[in-house]
Amino acid sequence: LNITADPARLCVHQVTLMAQCDFRQSVECLARNGITKTAVWREKLDATGVADAASILRDHGVEAVALCPGGLLTHRDPAGFHSALGDNRRWLDWAAAIGAKSLVTITGGLGENETDLRFARDRALEGLAMLVPPARAAGVRLALEPLHPMVCGNRSVISTLREANTWLDQLDADDVMGIAVDTYAVWWEPDLQREIARAGKRIIAFHVSDWLADTTDVRLDRGMPGDGLIDLPAIRRWAEAAGYRGPIEVEIFSQRDWWTRDPDVVVRTILDRYGRSF
Amino acid sequence: LNITADPARLCVHQVTLMAQCDFRQSVECLARNGITKTAVWREKLDATGVADAASILRDHGVEAVALCPGGLLTHRDPAGFHSALGDNRRWLDWAAAIGAKSLVTITGGLGENETDLRFARDRALEGLAMLVPPARAAGVRLALEPLHPMVCGNRSVISTLREANTWLDQLDADDVMGIAVDTYAVWWEPDLQREIARAGKRIIAFHVSDWLADTTDVRLDRGMPGDGLIDLPAIRRWAEAAGYRGPIEVEIFSQRDWWTRDPDVVVRTILDRYGRSF
Repeated sequence: LNITADPARLCVHQVTLMAQCDFRQSVECLARNGITKTAVWREKLDATGVADAASILRDHGVEAVALCPGGLLTHRDPAGFHSALGDNRRWLDWAAAIGAKSLVTITGGLGENETDLRFARDRALEGLAMLVPPARAAGVRLALEPLHPMVCGNRSVISTLREANTWLDQLDADDVMGIAVDTYAVWWEPDLQREIARAGKRIIAFHVSDWLADTTDVRLDRGMPGDGLIDLPAIRRWAEAAGYRGPIEVEIFSQRDWWTRDPDVVVRTILDRYGRSF
Repeated sequence: LNITADPARLCVHQVTLMAQCDFRQSVECLARNGITKTAVWREKLDATGVADAASILRDHGVEAVALCPGGLLTHRDPAGFHSALGDNRRWLDWAAAIGAKSLVTITGGLGENETDLRFARDRALEGLAMLVPPARAAGVRLALEPLHPMVCGNRSVISTLREANTWLDQLDADDVMGIAVDTYAVWWEPDLQREIARAGKRIIAFHVSDWLADTTDVRLDRGMPGDGLIDLPAIRRWAEAAGYRGPIEVEIFSQRDWWTRDPDVVVRTILDRYGRSF
Protein backbone atom coordinates (compact mmCIF):
# COMPACT_ATOMS: atom_id res chain seq x y z
CA LEU A 1 0.00 0.00 0.00
CA ASN A 2 1.13 3.52 -0.73
CA ILE A 3 0.93 6.25 1.84
CA THR A 4 -1.18 8.99 0.32
CA ALA A 5 -1.30 12.61 1.26
CA ASP A 6 -5.01 13.07 0.55
CA PRO A 7 -5.68 16.51 2.09
CA ALA A 8 -9.22 15.51 3.03
CA ARG A 9 -7.84 12.92 5.46
CA LEU A 10 -5.53 15.25 7.35
CA CYS A 11 -6.78 16.20 10.81
CA VAL A 12 -5.08 18.45 13.33
CA HIS A 13 -6.05 18.01 16.95
CA GLN A 14 -6.94 21.19 18.80
CA VAL A 15 -4.45 20.22 21.47
CA THR A 16 -1.64 20.73 18.95
CA LEU A 17 -2.39 24.46 19.26
CA MET A 18 -3.33 24.15 22.93
CA ALA A 19 -1.30 27.04 24.30
CA GLN A 20 -1.78 29.52 21.46
CA CYS A 21 -5.46 29.30 20.49
CA ASP A 22 -8.89 29.21 22.02
CA PHE A 23 -11.56 27.11 20.33
CA ARG A 24 -12.44 29.67 17.66
CA GLN A 25 -8.84 30.64 16.90
CA SER A 26 -7.80 27.04 16.39
CA VAL A 27 -10.67 26.39 13.96
CA GLU A 28 -9.91 29.63 12.09
CA CYS A 29 -6.24 28.70 11.83
CA LEU A 30 -7.02 25.26 10.42
CA ALA A 31 -9.61 26.64 7.97
CA ARG A 32 -7.32 29.31 6.55
CA ASN A 33 -4.68 26.64 5.95
CA GLY A 34 -7.11 24.38 4.13
CA ILE A 35 -7.45 21.76 6.86
CA THR A 36 -11.01 20.46 7.19
CA LYS A 37 -10.77 18.15 10.18
CA THR A 38 -10.00 18.57 13.84
CA ALA A 39 -10.42 16.66 17.07
CA VAL A 40 -11.89 18.80 19.81
CA TRP A 41 -10.27 19.03 23.20
CA ARG A 42 -12.82 18.91 26.01
CA GLU A 43 -11.43 21.88 27.93
CA LYS A 44 -11.59 24.11 24.86
CA LEU A 45 -15.15 23.01 24.17
CA ASP A 46 -16.20 23.63 27.74
CA ALA A 47 -14.75 27.14 27.68
CA THR A 48 -16.57 28.03 24.44
CA GLY A 49 -19.84 26.22 24.99
CA VAL A 50 -21.27 23.46 22.86
CA ALA A 51 -23.69 25.56 20.81
CA ASP A 52 -21.11 28.19 19.88
CA ALA A 53 -18.55 25.51 19.16
CA ALA A 54 -20.91 23.77 16.76
CA SER A 55 -21.53 27.06 14.93
CA ILE A 56 -17.85 27.88 14.69
CA LEU A 57 -17.09 24.47 13.19
CA ARG A 58 -20.00 24.71 10.71
CA ASP A 59 -19.17 28.28 9.70
CA HIS A 60 -15.60 27.33 8.87
CA GLY A 61 -16.28 24.02 7.18
CA VAL A 62 -14.25 22.16 9.76
CA GLU A 63 -15.42 18.75 10.92
CA ALA A 64 -14.87 17.53 14.47
CA VAL A 65 -13.91 13.90 14.02
CA ALA A 66 -13.75 13.24 17.76
CA LEU A 67 -13.97 14.70 21.23
CA CYS A 68 -10.99 14.04 23.57
CA PRO A 69 -10.62 12.70 26.20
CA GLY A 70 -13.41 10.76 27.87
CA GLY A 71 -13.23 7.83 30.24
CA LEU A 72 -11.15 8.38 33.41
CA LEU A 73 -13.09 5.64 35.15
CA THR A 74 -10.77 4.14 37.75
CA HIS A 75 -12.27 5.60 40.93
CA ARG A 76 -12.41 3.21 43.83
CA ASP A 77 -15.16 5.01 45.74
CA PRO A 78 -18.62 4.38 44.26
CA ALA A 79 -19.62 8.06 44.38
CA GLY A 80 -16.59 9.12 42.38
CA PHE A 81 -17.11 6.28 39.94
CA HIS A 82 -20.76 7.13 39.32
CA SER A 83 -19.93 10.79 39.01
CA ALA A 84 -17.37 9.90 36.33
CA LEU A 85 -19.97 7.86 34.48
CA GLY A 86 -22.28 10.88 34.58
CA ASP A 87 -19.52 13.09 33.19
CA ASN A 88 -19.05 10.66 30.31
CA ARG A 89 -22.74 10.60 29.48
CA ARG A 90 -22.57 14.37 29.27
CA TRP A 91 -19.45 14.24 27.09
CA LEU A 92 -21.18 11.78 24.76
CA ASP A 93 -23.97 14.31 24.34
CA TRP A 94 -21.43 17.06 23.72
CA ALA A 95 -19.75 14.93 21.07
CA ALA A 96 -23.09 14.32 19.35
CA ALA A 97 -23.91 18.03 19.49
CA ILE A 98 -20.74 19.01 17.63
CA GLY A 99 -21.12 16.18 15.13
CA ALA A 100 -18.18 14.14 16.42
CA LYS A 101 -18.52 10.45 15.66
CA SER A 102 -16.43 9.31 18.59
CA LEU A 103 -15.31 10.06 22.11
CA VAL A 104 -11.64 9.19 22.56
CA THR A 105 -11.64 7.27 25.81
CA ILE A 106 -8.79 6.64 28.24
CA THR A 107 -9.11 4.54 31.35
CA GLY A 108 -7.62 6.93 33.91
CA GLY A 109 -4.75 6.02 36.24
CA LEU A 110 -4.31 5.09 39.87
CA GLY A 111 -5.91 7.23 42.55
CA GLU A 112 -3.93 8.94 45.26
CA ASN A 113 -2.13 6.42 47.49
CA GLU A 114 -3.46 3.55 45.39
CA THR A 115 -1.20 0.73 44.25
CA ASP A 116 -3.84 -1.76 43.17
CA LEU A 117 -3.44 -1.84 39.40
CA ARG A 118 -5.67 -4.85 38.98
CA PHE A 119 -8.54 -3.11 40.73
CA ALA A 120 -8.08 0.00 38.58
CA ARG A 121 -8.11 -2.10 35.42
CA ASP A 122 -11.19 -4.03 36.46
CA ARG A 123 -12.92 -0.81 37.42
CA ALA A 124 -12.20 0.84 34.10
CA LEU A 125 -13.45 -2.20 32.22
CA GLU A 126 -16.62 -2.16 34.31
CA GLY A 127 -17.07 1.53 33.55
CA LEU A 128 -16.58 1.03 29.83
CA ALA A 129 -19.24 -1.68 29.81
CA MET A 130 -21.61 0.73 31.53
CA LEU A 131 -20.95 3.39 28.88
CA VAL A 132 -22.01 1.14 26.02
CA PRO A 133 -25.75 1.86 26.27
CA PRO A 134 -25.41 5.67 26.55
CA ALA A 135 -22.89 5.65 23.69
CA ARG A 136 -25.39 3.74 21.53
CA ALA A 137 -28.12 6.16 22.54
CA ALA A 138 -25.97 9.16 21.65
CA GLY A 139 -24.82 7.64 18.37
CA VAL A 140 -21.21 8.24 19.35
CA ARG A 141 -18.52 5.55 19.36
CA LEU A 142 -16.11 5.07 22.24
CA ALA A 143 -12.57 5.02 20.84
CA LEU A 144 -10.52 3.27 23.51
CA GLU A 145 -6.99 4.65 23.47
CA PRO A 146 -4.18 2.77 25.17
CA LEU A 147 -1.58 5.27 26.36
CA HIS A 148 2.15 4.89 26.86
CA PRO A 149 3.17 2.87 29.94
CA MET A 150 4.92 5.98 31.28
CA VAL A 151 1.50 7.46 32.05
CA CYS A 152 0.13 4.28 33.60
CA GLY A 153 0.20 5.96 36.98
CA ASN A 154 -2.01 8.92 36.22
CA ARG A 155 -3.71 8.59 32.82
CA SER A 156 -4.24 5.04 31.62
CA VAL A 157 -3.91 1.67 33.27
CA ILE A 158 -3.93 -0.04 29.91
CA SER A 159 -0.78 0.53 27.95
CA THR A 160 -0.80 -1.65 24.87
CA LEU A 161 -2.86 -2.22 21.77
CA ARG A 162 -2.80 -5.87 22.72
CA GLU A 163 -4.73 -5.11 25.92
CA ALA A 164 -7.14 -2.82 24.09
CA ASN A 165 -7.90 -5.64 21.65
CA THR A 166 -8.47 -8.07 24.49
CA TRP A 167 -10.78 -5.62 26.25
CA LEU A 168 -12.82 -5.12 23.11
CA ASP A 169 -13.09 -8.88 22.73
CA GLN A 170 -14.52 -8.99 26.25
CA LEU A 171 -16.83 -6.00 25.82
CA ASP A 172 -18.26 -7.46 22.61
CA ALA A 173 -19.73 -4.14 21.46
CA ASP A 174 -17.90 -3.40 18.22
CA ASP A 175 -20.91 -1.53 16.84
CA VAL A 176 -20.21 1.27 19.32
CA MET A 177 -16.63 0.69 20.47
CA GLY A 178 -13.38 0.99 18.62
CA ILE A 179 -9.73 1.73 19.21
CA ALA A 180 -7.67 4.89 18.85
CA VAL A 181 -4.13 3.98 17.80
CA ASP A 182 -1.67 6.63 18.93
CA THR A 183 1.72 6.11 17.32
CA TYR A 184 3.48 7.87 20.21
CA ALA A 185 1.88 5.51 22.72
CA VAL A 186 2.43 2.18 20.98
CA TRP A 187 5.43 2.52 18.66
CA TRP A 188 7.63 0.45 20.98
CA GLU A 189 5.10 -2.41 21.29
CA PRO A 190 6.75 -5.72 20.37
CA ASP A 191 3.86 -7.22 18.40
CA LEU A 192 2.55 -3.94 17.04
CA GLN A 193 2.06 -5.01 13.44
CA ARG A 194 0.20 -8.13 14.51
CA GLU A 195 -1.99 -6.26 17.01
CA ILE A 196 -2.88 -3.64 14.39
CA ALA A 197 -3.93 -6.45 12.05
CA ARG A 198 -5.91 -8.00 14.90
CA ALA A 199 -7.63 -4.68 15.59
CA GLY A 200 -8.64 -4.41 11.93
CA LYS A 201 -11.86 -2.48 11.50
CA ARG A 202 -11.89 -1.59 15.16
CA ILE A 203 -9.32 1.13 14.45
CA ILE A 204 -11.41 4.29 14.27
CA ALA A 205 -8.76 6.89 15.08
CA PHE A 206 -5.09 7.20 14.16
CA HIS A 207 -3.01 9.73 16.11
CA VAL A 208 0.39 10.81 14.89
CA SER A 209 3.33 12.48 16.61
CA ASP A 210 7.00 11.58 16.95
CA TRP A 211 9.27 10.40 19.75
CA LEU A 212 12.19 12.78 20.16
CA ALA A 213 15.56 11.14 20.78
CA ASP A 214 16.39 13.64 23.51
CA THR A 215 12.98 13.70 25.18
CA THR A 216 12.90 13.94 28.95
CA ASP A 217 9.29 14.76 29.87
CA VAL A 218 6.80 11.92 30.27
CA ARG A 219 3.82 13.74 28.81
CA LEU A 220 4.32 17.13 27.16
CA ASP A 221 7.31 16.68 24.87
CA ARG A 222 5.99 15.07 21.72
CA GLY A 223 7.70 15.81 18.44
CA MET A 224 6.59 16.86 14.97
CA PRO A 225 6.27 13.85 12.62
CA GLY A 226 9.64 13.32 10.99
CA ASP A 227 11.68 14.72 13.88
CA GLY A 228 11.96 11.55 15.92
CA LEU A 229 12.49 7.82 16.14
CA ILE A 230 9.12 6.41 15.12
CA ASP A 231 8.74 4.73 11.74
CA LEU A 232 5.41 6.51 11.15
CA PRO A 233 4.96 5.46 7.49
CA ALA A 234 5.33 1.81 8.47
CA ILE A 235 2.74 2.06 11.23
CA ARG A 236 0.35 3.89 8.93
CA ARG A 237 0.82 1.21 6.26
CA TRP A 238 -0.02 -1.48 8.84
CA ALA A 239 -3.19 0.41 9.79
CA GLU A 240 -4.21 0.83 6.17
CA ALA A 241 -3.51 -2.84 5.51
CA ALA A 242 -5.88 -3.57 8.38
CA GLY A 243 -8.57 -1.56 6.58
CA TYR A 244 -8.21 1.88 8.12
CA ARG A 245 -9.30 4.70 5.83
CA GLY A 246 -10.14 7.35 8.40
CA PRO A 247 -8.45 10.61 9.28
CA ILE A 248 -4.70 10.90 9.89
CA GLU A 249 -4.68 12.96 13.07
CA VAL A 250 -1.75 15.02 14.25
CA GLU A 251 -1.76 15.32 18.03
CA ILE A 252 1.30 17.05 19.49
CA PHE A 253 1.68 17.97 23.14
CA SER A 254 4.83 20.08 23.09
CA GLN A 255 5.42 22.43 25.96
CA ARG A 256 8.97 23.36 25.04
CA ASP A 257 8.57 23.76 21.30
CA TRP A 258 5.41 23.66 19.18
CA TRP A 259 3.15 25.19 21.82
CA THR A 260 5.45 28.21 21.82
CA ARG A 261 5.24 28.85 18.06
CA ASP A 262 2.93 30.79 15.81
CA PRO A 263 -0.06 28.51 15.07
CA ASP A 264 0.17 29.07 11.31
CA VAL A 265 3.80 27.97 11.39
CA VAL A 266 2.81 24.83 13.27
CA VAL A 267 0.04 24.00 10.82
CA ARG A 268 2.16 24.74 7.75
CA THR A 269 4.91 22.51 9.14
CA ILE A 270 2.37 19.72 9.52
CA LEU A 271 1.20 20.24 5.94
CA ASP A 272 4.79 20.14 4.76
CA ARG A 273 5.46 16.86 6.56
CA TYR A 274 2.20 15.19 5.60
CA GLY A 275 2.71 12.47 3.01
CA ARG A 276 6.46 12.63 3.43
CA SER A 277 6.92 11.74 7.08
CA PHE A 278 3.60 10.21 8.08
CA LEU B 1 4.72 -16.54 51.00
CA ASN B 2 5.83 -13.99 53.50
CA ILE B 3 8.07 -11.14 52.55
CA THR B 4 11.08 -11.37 54.78
CA ALA B 5 13.51 -8.68 55.68
CA ASP B 6 16.56 -10.93 55.87
CA PRO B 7 19.42 -8.41 56.10
CA ALA B 8 21.73 -10.73 54.18
CA ARG B 9 19.53 -10.39 51.09
CA LEU B 10 19.45 -6.60 50.99
CA CYS B 11 21.59 -5.11 48.25
CA VAL B 12 22.07 -1.42 47.46
CA HIS B 13 23.20 -0.56 43.97
CA GLN B 14 26.13 1.82 43.73
CA VAL B 15 24.08 3.98 41.40
CA THR B 16 21.76 4.78 44.30
CA LEU B 17 24.63 6.88 45.69
CA MET B 18 25.83 7.87 42.22
CA ALA B 19 26.22 11.58 42.78
CA GLN B 20 27.59 11.52 46.32
CA CYS B 21 30.15 8.71 46.41
CA ASP B 22 33.04 7.31 44.45
CA PHE B 23 33.57 3.55 44.44
CA ARG B 24 35.31 3.39 47.80
CA GLN B 25 32.97 5.83 49.55
CA SER B 26 29.89 3.88 48.46
CA VAL B 27 31.33 0.59 49.74
CA GLU B 28 32.35 2.23 53.03
CA CYS B 29 28.88 3.72 53.45
CA LEU B 30 27.18 0.36 52.90
CA ALA B 31 29.58 -1.47 55.20
CA ARG B 32 29.15 0.95 58.10
CA ASN B 33 25.38 0.54 57.80
CA GLY B 34 25.61 -3.26 57.85
CA ILE B 35 24.78 -3.83 54.18
CA THR B 36 26.83 -6.63 52.66
CA LYS B 37 25.78 -6.55 49.02
CA THR B 38 26.07 -4.07 46.21
CA ALA B 39 25.81 -4.00 42.45
CA VAL B 40 28.73 -2.21 40.86
CA TRP B 41 28.21 0.54 38.33
CA ARG B 42 30.62 0.25 35.42
CA GLU B 43 31.66 3.91 35.42
CA LYS B 44 32.60 3.77 39.10
CA LEU B 45 34.58 0.60 38.54
CA ASP B 46 36.41 2.06 35.58
CA ALA B 47 37.38 5.15 37.57
CA THR B 48 38.76 3.07 40.46
CA GLY B 49 40.32 0.21 38.55
CA VAL B 50 39.39 -3.44 38.83
CA ALA B 51 42.19 -4.51 41.16
CA ASP B 52 41.61 -1.72 43.68
CA ALA B 53 37.84 -2.23 43.47
CA ALA B 54 38.22 -5.93 44.29
CA SER B 55 40.37 -5.05 47.31
CA ILE B 56 37.94 -2.43 48.55
CA LEU B 57 35.03 -4.87 48.36
CA ARG B 58 37.00 -7.64 50.10
CA ASP B 59 38.34 -5.37 52.83
CA HIS B 60 34.82 -4.20 53.72
CA GLY B 61 33.08 -7.56 53.46
CA VAL B 62 30.82 -6.29 50.71
CA GLU B 63 29.89 -8.61 47.88
CA ALA B 64 29.35 -7.36 44.32
CA VAL B 65 26.33 -9.32 43.14
CA ALA B 66 26.48 -7.88 39.64
CA LEU B 67 28.14 -5.42 37.31
CA CYS B 68 25.84 -2.93 35.49
CA PRO B 69 25.23 -2.31 32.67
CA GLY B 70 26.50 -4.43 29.81
CA GLY B 71 25.01 -5.06 26.41
CA LEU B 72 24.28 -1.95 24.30
CA LEU B 73 24.47 -4.04 21.15
CA THR B 74 22.21 -2.38 18.59
CA HIS B 75 24.82 -0.83 16.30
CA ARG B 76 24.00 -1.07 12.62
CA ASP B 77 27.56 -0.66 11.37
CA PRO B 78 29.63 -3.85 11.72
CA ALA B 79 32.63 -2.04 13.20
CA GLY B 80 30.55 -0.47 15.97
CA PHE B 81 28.82 -3.78 16.64
CA HIS B 82 32.07 -5.72 16.92
CA SER B 83 33.57 -3.02 19.07
CA ALA B 84 30.57 -3.33 21.41
CA LEU B 85 31.05 -7.09 21.59
CA GLY B 86 34.67 -6.48 22.54
CA ASP B 87 33.60 -4.09 25.28
CA ASN B 88 31.27 -6.73 26.67
CA ARG B 89 33.96 -9.38 26.71
CA ARG B 90 36.08 -6.98 28.75
CA TRP B 91 33.18 -6.22 31.11
CA LEU B 92 32.63 -9.95 31.63
CA ASP B 93 36.26 -10.20 32.71
CA TRP B 94 35.81 -7.21 34.99
CA ALA B 95 32.76 -8.83 36.56
CA ALA B 96 34.70 -12.04 37.17
CA ALA B 97 37.59 -10.09 38.68
CA ILE B 98 35.38 -8.45 41.30
CA GLY B 99 33.53 -11.69 42.03
CA ALA B 100 30.25 -10.60 40.46
CA LYS B 101 28.14 -13.53 39.28
CA SER B 102 26.35 -11.60 36.57
CA LEU B 103 26.55 -8.76 34.10
CA VAL B 104 23.24 -6.91 33.94
CA THR B 105 22.66 -6.58 30.21
CA ILE B 106 20.49 -4.12 28.32
CA THR B 107 20.02 -4.18 24.57
CA GLY B 108 20.75 -0.51 23.79
CA GLY B 109 18.37 1.74 21.84
CA LEU B 110 18.12 3.14 18.35
CA GLY B 111 21.13 4.82 16.78
CA GLU B 112 21.07 8.40 15.59
CA ASN B 113 18.54 8.93 12.78
CA GLU B 114 17.47 5.29 13.02
CA THR B 115 13.82 4.30 13.04
CA ASP B 116 14.19 0.60 12.33
CA LEU B 117 13.18 -1.00 15.59
CA ARG B 118 13.03 -4.48 14.13
CA PHE B 119 16.63 -4.23 12.96
CA ALA B 120 17.75 -3.01 16.38
CA ARG B 121 15.96 -5.88 18.09
CA ASP B 122 17.40 -8.48 15.72
CA ARG B 123 20.86 -6.99 16.14
CA ALA B 124 20.68 -7.09 19.92
CA LEU B 125 19.50 -10.69 19.87
CA GLU B 126 22.37 -11.56 17.52
CA GLY B 127 24.80 -9.83 19.88
CA LEU B 128 23.48 -11.65 22.93
CA ALA B 129 23.92 -14.98 21.18
CA MET B 130 27.53 -14.03 20.44
CA LEU B 131 28.14 -13.20 24.10
CA VAL B 132 27.12 -16.66 25.30
CA PRO B 133 30.52 -18.32 24.78
CA PRO B 134 32.57 -15.54 26.43
CA ALA B 135 30.10 -15.42 29.33
CA ARG B 136 30.52 -19.15 29.83
CA ALA B 137 34.28 -18.77 29.65
CA ALA B 138 34.25 -15.98 32.24
CA GLY B 139 31.86 -17.85 34.52
CA VAL B 140 29.56 -14.80 34.59
CA ARG B 141 25.86 -14.91 33.74
CA LEU B 142 24.20 -12.38 31.46
CA ALA B 143 21.16 -10.95 33.26
CA LEU B 144 18.98 -9.57 30.48
CA GLU B 145 17.05 -6.58 31.80
CA PRO B 146 14.01 -5.28 29.93
CA LEU B 147 13.72 -1.55 30.54
CA HIS B 148 10.67 0.68 30.58
CA PRO B 149 9.18 1.49 27.15
CA MET B 150 9.93 5.16 27.79
CA VAL B 151 13.63 4.41 27.25
CA CYS B 152 13.04 2.29 24.15
CA GLY B 153 14.61 5.03 22.04
CA ASN B 154 17.98 5.24 23.74
CA ARG B 155 18.51 2.38 26.20
CA SER B 156 16.57 -0.80 25.46
CA VAL B 157 14.56 -1.96 22.48
CA ILE B 158 12.99 -4.67 24.55
CA SER B 159 10.52 -3.34 27.06
CA THR B 160 8.69 -6.23 28.67
CA LEU B 161 9.40 -9.31 30.70
CA ARG B 162 7.32 -11.16 28.14
CA GLU B 163 9.85 -10.32 25.42
CA ALA B 164 12.79 -11.17 27.66
CA ASN B 165 11.25 -14.59 28.29
CA THR B 166 10.74 -15.14 24.58
CA TRP B 167 14.32 -14.12 23.84
CA LEU B 168 15.67 -16.52 26.43
CA ASP B 169 13.55 -19.27 24.91
CA GLN B 170 15.21 -18.53 21.59
CA LEU B 171 18.73 -18.21 22.98
CA ASP B 172 18.43 -21.53 24.81
CA ALA B 173 21.36 -20.83 27.12
CA ASP B 174 19.79 -20.80 30.57
CA ASP B 175 23.02 -22.06 32.15
CA VAL B 176 24.60 -18.68 31.46
CA MET B 177 21.67 -16.35 30.81
CA GLY B 178 19.00 -15.08 33.12
CA ILE B 179 16.69 -12.13 33.60
CA ALA B 180 16.92 -9.04 35.77
CA VAL B 181 13.42 -8.00 36.87
CA ASP B 182 13.30 -4.28 37.58
CA THR B 183 10.05 -3.34 39.30
CA TYR B 184 10.24 0.23 37.97
CA ALA B 185 10.51 -1.05 34.41
CA VAL B 186 7.79 -3.69 34.40
CA TRP B 187 5.24 -2.78 37.10
CA TRP B 188 2.68 -1.67 34.48
CA GLU B 189 2.98 -4.88 32.42
CA PRO B 190 -0.45 -6.46 31.94
CA ASP B 191 0.57 -10.10 32.39
CA LEU B 192 3.32 -9.43 34.91
CA GLN B 193 2.42 -12.13 37.40
CA ARG B 194 2.19 -14.74 34.65
CA GLU B 195 5.46 -13.66 33.03
CA ILE B 196 7.27 -13.76 36.37
CA ALA B 197 5.98 -17.31 36.86
CA ARG B 198 7.10 -18.12 33.31
CA ALA B 199 10.56 -16.69 34.00
CA GLY B 200 10.88 -18.89 37.11
CA LYS B 201 14.48 -19.78 37.87
CA ARG B 202 15.66 -17.48 35.11
CA ILE B 203 15.17 -14.55 37.47
CA ILE B 204 18.67 -13.86 38.77
CA ALA B 205 18.29 -10.21 39.78
CA PHE B 206 15.46 -8.24 41.37
CA HIS B 207 15.71 -4.44 41.26
CA VAL B 208 13.49 -2.29 43.42
CA SER B 209 12.50 1.37 43.25
CA ASP B 210 9.16 3.15 43.17
CA TRP B 211 7.18 5.10 40.57
CA LEU B 212 6.41 8.57 41.88
CA ALA B 213 2.90 9.87 41.15
CA ASP B 214 4.25 13.26 40.13
CA THR B 215 7.22 12.04 38.13
CA THR B 216 8.08 13.93 34.98
CA ASP B 217 11.55 12.74 33.95
CA VAL B 218 11.86 9.63 31.83
CA ARG B 219 15.01 8.32 33.43
CA LEU B 220 16.38 9.97 36.55
CA ASP B 221 13.39 10.39 38.84
CA ARG B 222 12.90 7.06 40.56
CA GLY B 223 11.42 6.99 44.03
CA MET B 224 12.32 5.34 47.33
CA PRO B 225 10.35 2.11 47.87
CA GLY B 226 7.09 3.02 49.60
CA ASP B 227 6.86 6.52 48.15
CA GLY B 228 5.10 5.63 44.92
CA LEU B 229 2.48 3.66 43.03
CA ILE B 230 4.08 0.24 42.64
CA ASP B 231 2.78 -2.68 44.68
CA LEU B 232 6.33 -3.82 45.46
CA PRO B 233 5.42 -6.50 48.02
CA ALA B 234 3.11 -8.16 45.49
CA ILE B 235 5.76 -8.24 42.79
CA ARG B 236 8.32 -9.61 45.22
CA ARG B 237 5.87 -12.30 46.32
CA TRP B 238 5.37 -13.31 42.69
CA ALA B 239 9.13 -13.54 42.21
CA GLU B 240 9.55 -15.63 45.35
CA ALA B 241 6.68 -17.86 44.30
CA ALA B 242 8.61 -18.38 41.05
CA GLY B 243 11.58 -19.56 43.10
CA TYR B 244 13.63 -16.40 43.48
CA ARG B 245 15.79 -16.36 46.61
CA GLY B 246 18.48 -13.92 45.49
CA PRO B 247 19.27 -10.40 46.60
CA ILE B 248 16.64 -7.68 46.88
CA GLU B 249 18.42 -4.82 45.12
CA VAL B 250 17.58 -1.19 45.61
CA GLU B 251 18.44 0.81 42.49
CA ILE B 252 17.34 4.45 42.60
CA PHE B 253 18.26 7.01 39.96
CA SER B 254 17.06 10.23 41.56
CA GLN B 255 18.51 13.46 40.32
CA ARG B 256 16.13 15.75 42.17
CA ASP B 257 16.02 13.98 45.52
CA TRP B 258 18.06 11.01 46.74
CA TRP B 259 21.19 11.89 44.80
CA THR B 260 21.24 15.21 46.66
CA ARG B 261 21.12 13.69 50.16
CA ASP B 262 23.70 12.48 52.63
CA PRO B 263 24.53 8.87 51.65
CA ASP B 264 24.02 7.57 55.20
CA VAL B 265 20.54 9.09 55.23
CA VAL B 266 19.75 7.38 51.93
CA VAL B 267 20.98 4.01 53.17
CA ARG B 268 19.25 4.28 56.54
CA THR B 269 16.00 5.18 54.76
CA ILE B 270 16.36 2.05 52.64
CA LEU B 271 16.95 -0.03 55.77
CA ASP B 272 13.88 1.50 57.37
CA ARG B 273 11.70 0.65 54.37
CA TYR B 274 13.06 -2.85 53.83
CA GLY B 275 10.61 -5.53 54.84
CA ARG B 276 7.84 -2.98 55.22
CA SER B 277 7.58 -1.50 51.73
CA PHE B 278 9.42 -3.98 49.54
